[in-house]
Amino acid sequence: MEDCIFCKIVAGTIPSVKIYENDKVFAFADINPILEGHSLIIPKIHAENLWEIPDDYLKEIHPASKTIARAMLKTLNCSGIACLQLNGRSVNQVVMHYHFHLIPRKEADPELSMTKWDLIPGDMNKIKQIAEAIAGAI
Amino acid sequence: MEDCIFCKIVAGTIPSVKIYENDKVFAFADINPILEGHSLIIPKIHAENLWEIPDDYLKEIHPASKTIARAMLKTLNCSGIACLQLNGRSVNQVVMHYHFHLIPRKEADPELSMTKWDLIPGDMNKIKQIAEAIAGAI
Repeated sequence: MEDCIFCKIVAGTIPSVKIYENDKVFAFADINPILEGHSLIIPKIHAENLWEIPDDYLKEIHPASKTIARAMLKTLNCSGIACLQLNGRSVNQVVMHYHFHLIPRKEADPELSMTKWDLIPGDMNKIKQIAEAIAGAI
Repeated sequence: MEDCIFCKIVAGTIPSVKIYENDKVFAFADINPILEGHSLIIPKIHAENLWEIPDDYLKEIHPASKTIARAMLKTLNCSGIACLQLNGRSVNQVVMHYHFHLIPRKEADPELSMTKWDLIPGDMNKIKQIAEAIAGAI
């Protein structure tokens, strides 16, 4: 889709910090991480949400999330991982292309909101370093 | 697993308000709903989290969530659905059996926390009525 930022990331016309991909899904670091290691998985076609994403793309999201979660456990000092996927503006979906959040969390990290958070750009060097570590453990 | 409340729900030794099931997954109403229609999908075997659930069970979770989400859109007056799946005590996983939350939300509903919420029992008559409506639309 022409104006979709995530379609542009898949196409490579907007740069991203890749963590994982296969023929159906692409995973990359969130550049506005709510916690260190915050990552996204998206389908390689444009689909707005859970009820619109084609089954053959949807079925690749969960296995990819398991793969990435295991790599996060190996490389980050996290004691838990929240998986979140928002559908519709009323639950804070900001980019209208299906995306599955993986948010690793340590005990002492702040509590997280599900439907409301600020988009604060992270330190790109740190984001790249963490993403490379996760990708390297896959 | 003997002491697991969700294994008992699958076995039917603890009652639940069923929404959907197939040979691998079971979906039911959360009796402590954070919003109306809050539902859970669990695998029919004991697996604590995303990195422990066997692939053949995991791959059934997402299609089930899509089926239920579409039924929620038809029956509830919701304008969005949050999907949440928590892994580990540090992200507020309370029952240590993998469970995938579907939380329908209307614009005027309160903001939701991801990692911290109170378990407040809902009105069982209302929970049953909503669950039956969702189940009936599948």
